Amino acid sequence: MSYPILHPLDVLSVEETNKARQIIIDTRCAKTALLFRSIALEEPPKAELTQFLDIEHAGKLTTETKRPARIAKIQYDVVSGKDEHEYTESWVDVVTGEETRKRIVDKVHHAALTLVEFQEFSDACFDSSLYKEAIAEFELPEGFVVTADPWPYGGPALDEKAPRYIQGLCFARDTRSGNPDANYYTYPLPIIPVMDTNTKEIIRIDRLATGGKDDGLVYGTHNKRVLDHCSPADYIPELLAQPLRTDVKPLNVTQPEGPSYEVEGNLVRWQKWRFRVGFNPREGATLHDLRYDGRSVLYRLSLSEMTVPYGDPRPPFHRKQAFDFGDAGAGRAANNLALGCDCLGVIKYFDAVLTAKDGTATVSKNVLCLHEQDNGIGWKHTNYTTQNAIVSRSRELVVQFIITLANYEYIFAYKLDQAGGITIETRATGIVSVVNIDAGKTSPWGNVVSSGALAQNHQHIFCVRIDPAIDGYNNTVAVEESLLMPISKEINPYGNGYEVRTTPITHAKHLDASPLTNLTIKLTNPHILNPISQKPVAYKFSPLPTQLMLAHPDSIVAQRAQFAQHHVWVTKYKDGELWAGGEFTNMSQRETDGVSDAVKRGECVEDADVVVWNVFALTHNPRVEDWPVMPVEIYQIHLKPADFFTGNPAIDVQQTKNNTSILAPGSKDECCTNGTNGVNGNGEVKVQGDPASHMQSDLSIYPK
Amino acid sequence: MSYPILHPLDVLSVEETNKARQIIIDTRCAKTALLFRSIALEEPPKAELTQFLDIEHAGKLTTETKRPARIAKIQYDVVSGKDEHEYTESWVDVVTGEETRKRIVDKVHHAALTLVEFQEFSDACFDSSLYKEAIAEFELPEGFVVTADPWPYGGPALDEKAPRYIQGLCFARDTRSGNPDANYYTYPLPIIPVMDTNTKEIIRIDRLATGGKDDGLVYGTHNKRVLDHCSPADYIPELLAQPLRTDVKPLNVTQPEGPSYEVEGNLVRWQKWRFRVGFNPREGATLHDLRYDGRSVLYRLSLSEMTVPYGDPRPPFHRKQAFDFGDAGAGRAANNLALGCDCLGVIKYFDAVLTAKDGTATVSKNVLCLHEQDNGIGWKHTNYTTQNAIVSRSRELVVQFIITLANYEYIFAYKLDQAGGITIETRATGIVSVVNIDAGKTSPWGNVVSSGALAQNHQHIFCVRIDPAIDGYNNTVAVEESLLMPISKEINPYGNGYEVRTTPITHAKHLDASPLTNLTIKLTNPHILNPISQKPVAYKFSPLPTQLMLAHPDSIVAQRAQFAQHHVWVTKYKDGELWAGGEFTNMSQRETDGVSDAVKRGECVEDADVVVWNVFALTHNPRVEDWPVMPVEIYQIHLKPADFFTGNPAIDVQQTKNNTSILAPGSKDECCTNGTNGVNGNGEVKVQGDPASHMQSDLSIYPK
Repeated sequence: MSYPILHPLDVLSVEETNKARQIIIDTRCAKTALLFRSIALEEPPKAELTQFLDIEHAGKLTTETKRPARIAKIQYDVVSGKDEHEYTESWVDVVTGEETRKRIVDKVHHAALTLVEFQEFSDACFDSSLYKEAIAEFELPEGFVVTADPWPYGGPALDEKAPRYIQGLCFARDTRSGNPDANYYTYPLPIIPVMDTNTKEIIRIDRLATGGKDDGLVYGTHNKRVLDHCSPADYIPELLAQPLRTDVKPLNVTQPEGPSYEVEGNLVRWQKWRFRVGFNPREGATLHDLRYDGRSVLYRLSLSEMTVPYGDPRPPFHRKQAFDFGDAGAGRAANNLALGCDCLGVIKYFDAVLTAKDGTATVSKNVLCLHEQDNGIGWKHTNYTTQNAIVSRSRELVVQFIITLANYEYIFAYKLDQAGGITIETRATGIVSVVNIDAGKTSPWGNVVSSGALAQNHQHIFCVRIDPAIDGYNNTVAVEESLLMPISKEINPYGNGYEVRTTPITHAKHLDASPLTNLTIKLTNPHILNPISQKPVAYKFSPLPTQLMLAHPDSIVAQRAQFAQHHVWVTKYKDGELWAGGEFTNMSQRETDGVSDAVKRGECVEDADVVVWNVFALTHNPRVEDWPVMPVEIYQIHLKPADFFTGNPAIDVQQTKNNTSILAPGSKDECCTNGTNGVNGNGEVKVQGDPASHMQSDLSIYPK
Repeated sequence: MSYPILHPLDVLSVEETNKARQIIIDTRCAKTALLFRSIALEEPPKAELTQFLDIEHAGKLTTETKRPARIAKIQYDVVSGKDEHEYTESWVDVVTGEETRKRIVDKVHHAALTLVEFQEFSDACFDSSLYKEAIAEFELPEGFVVTADPWPYGGPALDEKAPRYIQGLCFARDTRSGNPDANYYTYPLPIIPVMDTNTKEIIRIDRLATGGKDDGLVYGTHNKRVLDHCSPADYIPELLAQPLRTDVKPLNVTQPEGPSYEVEGNLVRWQKWRFRVGFNPREGATLHDLRYDGRSVLYRLSLSEMTVPYGDPRPPFHRKQAFDFGDAGAGRAANNLALGCDCLGVIKYFDAVLTAKDGTATVSKNVLCLHEQDNGIGWKHTNYTTQNAIVSRSRELVVQFIITLANYEYIFAYKLDQAGGITIETRATGIVSVVNIDAGKTSPWGNVVSSGALAQNHQHIFCVRIDPAIDGYNNTVAVEESLLMPISKEINPYGNGYEVRTTPITHAKHLDASPLTNLTIKLTNPHILNPISQKPVAYKFSPLPTQLMLAHPDSIVAQRAQFAQHHVWVTKYKDGELWAGGEFTNMSQRETDGVSDAVKRGECVEDADVVVWNVFALTHNPRVEDWPVMPVEIYQIHLKPADFFTGNPAIDVQQTKNNTSILAPGSKDECCTNGTNGVNGNGEVKVQGDPASHMQSDLSIYPK
């Protein structure tokens, strides 16, 4: 079987994935049952890949060029007996067919949940007498059926003996409309079934408090008709309570000459940018080998982890905490995007190769979209002495993917602009997680967003991993602060001066945002000075000064998400160190081999291969307006060149007058005609093209 | 002469303006010379206007309805003798013709600079032997001419005797290309002429230090050929050093069915929003009587003030500080916008009525634009059990104006969205202010952005004034914080809980952003509870935690901008109290009757007519990339409903599939077909419509 020559950063093809699977099946005794969890590309060691990239960018690539091995990482359980699972990770060379590394993972760690396990959970519920009895205690309205959303179990208490568990949030769906998209989240049931994923049995039903502000921790209603005070909350057009708006007229984006980008496999060229798109089951989209005008800027950019802890202290909600990347997988949860809905203009879609329950490859369509958008004015100046205005609009290239995790959605985007800027954007939307609350009650732990539905207060804590390559792979991270100066006759006689202090980070450390000193992180190359400013070439960003982890530092919730304790982590690059919360977040009790441990190594990061991790969070105390589907909450991080270039990189963006723009009906003539707009007392008319033109005057020109 | 019936919030017409002027001329002895500075609408007292608005919204408006008087505020100097200026403000009823109020302003205050004075400054320079001698000291390259940008004088030191002054920043323009738009800012001259605006004489030439980091405060070069090491920095296509990009393909926004907004005079209706647009010489665009679905949200929204202090301590740069609204006037500096350049789609422009040097009305075209734009996905949910995805895009209505102040530009926008959100956006662009620096030197006070051109470190400090009307004019401002809770057996046994604490503000005060407690400002109506959450209806915003005034608190720079000391000011409404830095900022030495004085009144603001002022700042330490015209730096404040509605207001926004979106050339078939994307080991094919569909399963439904 022959393979096309793939780029080392190309994701595993269907063929490679299936070959990797076969290798594992062949090397394990055939009688052993294998449960495949995931098969994906193991990116090459950086030393090998950068060597290859240097050759590639030197234009010296041939079929003879030595390439990094194509390695597949296979995650699977070796199942013996009824329920003995041995979680194993193997690395195989899909070209030579050899297993290069194997690791049997300590039972203290738990692999991410798979869709198979979600399925098994649903089946187990259906077969469970425990579950049936619990539901039988309720008198559900006619025509309602019960459904359970699988959730990770969260972090068990230290004194809790917990094998591998999965839990479910239960709701009832009103089937009377016959529409399967009736919103069942508005009918929450106060029980949580818990399954042992090995025995596949529902081992416990947790009862949920349904009380209000005066009812304490464990109050449970004895009301059998627990849904009677709940009300519908539909969002799909067919079931919407109110009529749809009819006054939103179409706004179309057209690109008659096609897109400005070029795509070749996973290689994208746009304007002066060039990068490769990656996609993996855990992180979703990743950007690699990002260069501007031939100069390297980033080696790798990714969303590393995310945790969503809930602030309702009533047990078992202390275990209501998801790590959506580590527990489930952003790539696995990616939506298949639809033209004209998820993005406008001329769209390029990318597919993903994922793993089915038997380990074979499955192709998921359109998980990633690439498109351009207009972001308003990019730069403008009007010469007031001539009234000549030059306007340049800002065009962006967007790499977007959207994930669904049961009730909730995240829209992630990497945006590049023409001024050398890189934006990482997250949009939170979807349906907020609600639990049942007794009629008429309110709670300090959330907001009643619909009768009987308490939307619990929670946080979304994101971590972006930035692996810089500012004109090369050895960089220095510096902190720039703007500081008040004392008044002094010699240096600051009138007190208007301020100091800009730049401090290089010498060893791995964490630091926090400091907006009041305008703290800015600079990714610099100390060996290359900007010829104009004589400062090291750099990219910079201001860490968003958001709230960090609110749970008590001693809590399991906080312990298992150490990365959420600080806004910025600076570490020495290490192959495979990609996940802020560690590889194993599912049911973890503390962060292991995450970014906090990486910092503890205390390595020198000055003029070294350094990695920067940026954490920001949305404290989400739900509004009624977040129901039934919440309007997007948007966060953006902006990476911008800072003395990387010798001028505004977008200065050569042509000022184009968009000819499809028109005046609104009934509007008067366009700018700067001499139409008469009014008559003054004396019947004279004055019309000014520009107020600034008052300021125009033959400025004192000397010598003339 | 008859007048059409105008709305009390309509700006003064040309007729009204000219009549107001005539009234002043008639009432002042004809022999007195009058210098008109500005004539504009004095908005009606709130008590009168709200009474009128109540009748208007009740639909009971008739020609008989008692209307607030149409009052013009006239600002002018009464000039006696050669240079005796008596700055005067008069208020006249333009219908009855009566002067209702007159005020002769204390000489300690200085009115904003007028374009007339800018003109006089230019003429004075041209006539000044002092100025000519100063310039003659330089040996300018062949073909260079000198020009001086008028600037406000800034705040004099306490021991400085300063009548009314104006100063100028000098540059040289290379005329050899014959192109008047050659960028002269790249050739800065180290002198500042100062003019007495009454005597109209250049009374002094300030010499500027041109040294570097080791040269102290007053180092002045004796190099006569001060421009020889400067280099061109052009931005207009004709003079650009490099070729323009040719790979930006057109991206068009078309609205085949026209805009979704309706405009009637200054009344704008869009989706469920309704408001009136105002425009005045000082603040530019203002929004009034903003309502959603008939419910009042804001009484008035405006950009109140802005100050730009420079951080270079070398005299006379301690006086390099502009108040662009109070010293000059955002409305007076507004650009005339051009179709297809400043905005895309279907545009409605508004004109402004300004005042010429003789006090007559002048019409300035297209100072304001109104248009719609797409802001990406507004909300989305995919039902993973059915794979049915509902996507709603977010449409925004934008009210935008752009101002030019010599070298610099600001783009201001008010944006409304379909989810009840209000965004105030500022974009900073234009040419950063530079001064001459000796060849090869660098400076701690700025960044060398072009050979010989030092871009000084500075701040842009903005203040937005929010006059809320949350379901009525009496509101309470509350502070919401999310706080860590101790671990306790009774309340927070596992430590995941957090407290959301809401504190009403009872008396006028200032406060600061506090991102680490997620501090949120809530504008509430304590008398109206949300029927679902049982909380007071509210709008909220998170004050941007930006750096505040960096100048030393004892400095004149800081003293005259007290508003820049805190992020949020809460005051009791007072007619005419619109300007955060006080009415008179020009040459002020401390803030007078600004927001800090308003707070000192200590009035009760609970359940009262309250006003909220939000301050945010951009500390701008220039990058080389900011040269010659800087890419926009964007700041946004988001006002969002918080339990104001009974659900997501945008839930009724139709999910429309945009039919003009297309696949990029060479792309495969669209989403969710069963195209075969690869063959696995056994020649079988697997294609998944959606990864999430793995998660799909007949969820345990009970009873069935």
